[in-house]
Amino acid sequence: MNSKKQLLEKIMNNQEVIGIIGLGYVGLPLAVNFAEAGVKVIGFDKSQDKVDMINNGDNYIGDIRDAVLRDVVDKVKLGATTDFSKMKECDALIICVPTPLDKFRKPDMSYIESACTEIGKNMSTNTFVSLESTTYPTTTEDFMLPIIEKESGLKHGEDFWLAYSPERVDPGNKNFHTRNTPKVMGAMTTDGLEIGEAIYKKAIDNIHKVSSPRIAEMVKILENTYRLVNISLINELALLSGKMDINIWEVIEAAKTKPFGFQAFYPGPGIGGHCIPLDPFYLEHIAKKYDFDLSMIHAAGHIDMRMPHYMYIKVATALNRHKKPVNGSKIMFLGVAYKPNIDDPRESPALEIMDITAHKGGDVFYHDPYIPLVKTNEGRGFQSIDLTEENLKNADVVVLTTNHREFDTEFIKKYSKLIVDLRNMIKEGGENVYKL
Amino acid sequence: MNSKKQLLEKIMNNQEVIGIIGLGYVGLPLAVNFAEAGVKVIGFDKSQDKVDMINNGDNYIGDIRDAVLRDVVDKVKLGATTDFSKMKECDALIICVPTPLDKFRKPDMSYIESACTEIGKNMSTNTFVSLESTTYPTTTEDFMLPIIEKESGLKHGEDFWLAYSPERVDPGNKNFHTRNTPKVMGAMTTDGLEIGEAIYKKAIDNIHKVSSPRIAEMVKILENTYRLVNISLINELALLSGKMDINIWEVIEAAKTKPFGFQAFYPGPGIGGHCIPLDPFYLEHIAKKYDFDLSMIHAAGHIDMRMPHYMYIKVATALNRHKKPVNGSKIMFLGVAYKPNIDDPRESPALEIMDITAHKGGDVFYHDPYIPLVKTNEGRGFQSIDLTEENLKNADVVVLTTNHREFDTEFIKKYSKLIVDLRNMIKEGGENVYKL
Repeated sequence: MNSKKQLLEKIMNNQEVIGIIGLGYVGLPLAVNFAEAGVKVIGFDKSQDKVDMINNGDNYIGDIRDAVLRDVVDKVKLGATTDFSKMKECDALIICVPTPLDKFRKPDMSYIESACTEIGKNMSTNTFVSLESTTYPTTTEDFMLPIIEKESGLKHGEDFWLAYSPERVDPGNKNFHTRNTPKVMGAMTTDGLEIGEAIYKKAIDNIHKVSSPRIAEMVKILENTYRLVNISLINELALLSGKMDINIWEVIEAAKTKPFGFQAFYPGPGIGGHCIPLDPFYLEHIAKKYDFDLSMIHAAGHIDMRMPHYMYIKVATALNRHKKPVNGSKIMFLGVAYKPNIDDPRESPALEIMDITAHKGGDVFYHDPYIPLVKTNEGRGFQSIDLTEENLKNADVVVLTTNHREFDTEFIKKYSKLIVDLRNMIKEGGENVYKL
Repeated sequence: MNSKKQLLEKIMNNQEVIGIIGLGYVGLPLAVNFAEAGVKVIGFDKSQDKVDMINNGDNYIGDIRDAVLRDVVDKVKLGATTDFSKMKECDALIICVPTPLDKFRKPDMSYIESACTEIGKNMSTNTFVSLESTTYPTTTEDFMLPIIEKESGLKHGEDFWLAYSPERVDPGNKNFHTRNTPKVMGAMTTDGLEIGEAIYKKAIDNIHKVSSPRIAEMVKILENTYRLVNISLINELALLSGKMDINIWEVIEAAKTKPFGFQAFYPGPGIGGHCIPLDPFYLEHIAKKYDFDLSMIHAAGHIDMRMPHYMYIKVATALNRHKKPVNGSKIMFLGVAYKPNIDDPRESPALEIMDITAHKGGDVFYHDPYIPLVKTNEGRGFQSIDLTEENLKNADVVVLTTNHREFDTEFIKKYSKLIVDLRNMIKEGGENVYKL
């Protein structure tokens, strides 16, 4: 029996073991989905804290129900470890590590590199390896493959199979989660594609196969570049509309009545999270190798980078109308999560506006019902204060930075001297409400 | 009885007369919709040919059924004239004239100016005036109003009412036409908005009212800028993908499996038609007045302008692989309409590629089942030749520029030596098929 048939038979008999590398908002839900389907899963992470929590059945990801995690851990379907040598027990290794940008907005490939090195050192023959992290096209073939082959001494296509299948996790999305979001996958060989589908389809309802890893890599970049470009476009139009005395929010509501050829995006103080502000720059990076300048991403990135500064100017302008300077004024921010109803402040524009405002001498404080403590990019630490009548009254200006559903706009409006609303939360504005 | 009540009563009693200025692909369908609803319509146009055709019941617009036009003309509900003095008989005047760009890509406002002058000279008191042509925000208030008041000596808000309500006609769209496409309208006063709704709702099912003409003007620009930006983005990614050996069409099909947050756009040889290549530059024009540079539109416009040149290079590269130069080669273009299944070659990128190719010495000819004759921007005249085995065999390269449903790709593939497919019409490519 050849190696592919052997592995497929193991999968058919539910005897395969899946290793998931990286137990964050992508890896842990995927691990839980496999375990729920009755597949034995080993989670790998360098963080002893995360590993201990999982092994205790304690959940730390908003999109997973606590009881489900506890259940699959109790049934010994899911266990976590920091010991990467256990990769040798796995028939599939799925990489869900971060792919951030460095300080110069260049791809930081160190997490993928480290995962590939561990895989190369530890995996057995007949293993399927898949990357889920967003990255530039050609990563799987040109970056991962050489590392794994060198570290393992094994040969792709005979001893192991490599694929790319991007995560599409949208934290907080109530309709679409890991299982019911169709998954794109491209492998380096047709054998790899066949094996990958057999593995993934236990955790995911629909697998959309494409002809190569680089196609799948480009798919993910296209999805997020589409969002970056459209958010940047509407942000730029919002800034112009402000100058032209046009309410951009009313414009968008009206444009939405067009029943074809339009999708609404909304302006905001900047782009946050772990995908949209980062992924397109992975493509910009590799494009340079092909002597190609991506002007749309470049322009979008420029707007994106400037937005928090423009928002600071909005705050300063509002205070100025009240004959107050930023320097010494009490400035209260409502919401530091990058999007509503989640507890994630990564890349949140609110933090950057807070930094700029504090840097200019503003007395900055914040409230976020989901995030009790934050540290800004410049290293300032803040603790959430309560959303009380007294705290609102005490502020010279209240800045609405995240539209959490908990925010009672009537209450906020009633007790605030001055409001800068960057999320169109206050529909009926007043004299003391300034909007993006 | 005040003037507003008088006009509303006339409308309620179906005694109003609607004047439509400009009888093209927007004005004539609108006129027919009013007439079908039993409203008397006078169509105004400077072209005696168009006026004569309408009065003979002869249709020249693809989206109108011939019998419907004939019927409303026979019932004397719709008549056309070149005599603008008849505007005095009208209770509403709706302007549907072109707003092109001049050779320097600046707005050509002469058609709107001319319409406003005629209206000012000829209209009676108690008239509702609406502009449907796409234009930059502030046009209605700052450009039209002064002309009409000066020419008429009448006062806005007392003697007449001005509104802006953008057309949303999508030629060839089988699902959405004039009546069932919601219509956005903004007027300068609440009286104007009330009158406008009463008038339009006889021809249009849903009127979405907004608070000012400039909001409505921005709505239309947003809709078309959204399309320009996204088509330009995918065109740029298509060019990069070509260099990276990535099939962009496969990427888009896979990205479409994402069930939220994505809308597919497709690459092509350039952007054509009377809206998308023009409208965003109206906004770019007015933005300058507000010291504002619209970087997304600028970048998109740059890509858009370059696409036909890149497409020429694709053709030259394909010929070169067959050891042939452009100079002296026979180059057959299939499709000169700017989109499939319509007879409109305005701003069509095919014509520009034909110009470039002919300029380089190519022996250019074309076939389009909808367009028997064309004249390029540079003034070259061409006559459609038949799509025959002989004509295909005779061509050194066949360039697929428009994906008309009539094109039989098997037939084209069978008899062509070499194909450059700019519309992904040939799904299973071969050695002699080069794709965008």
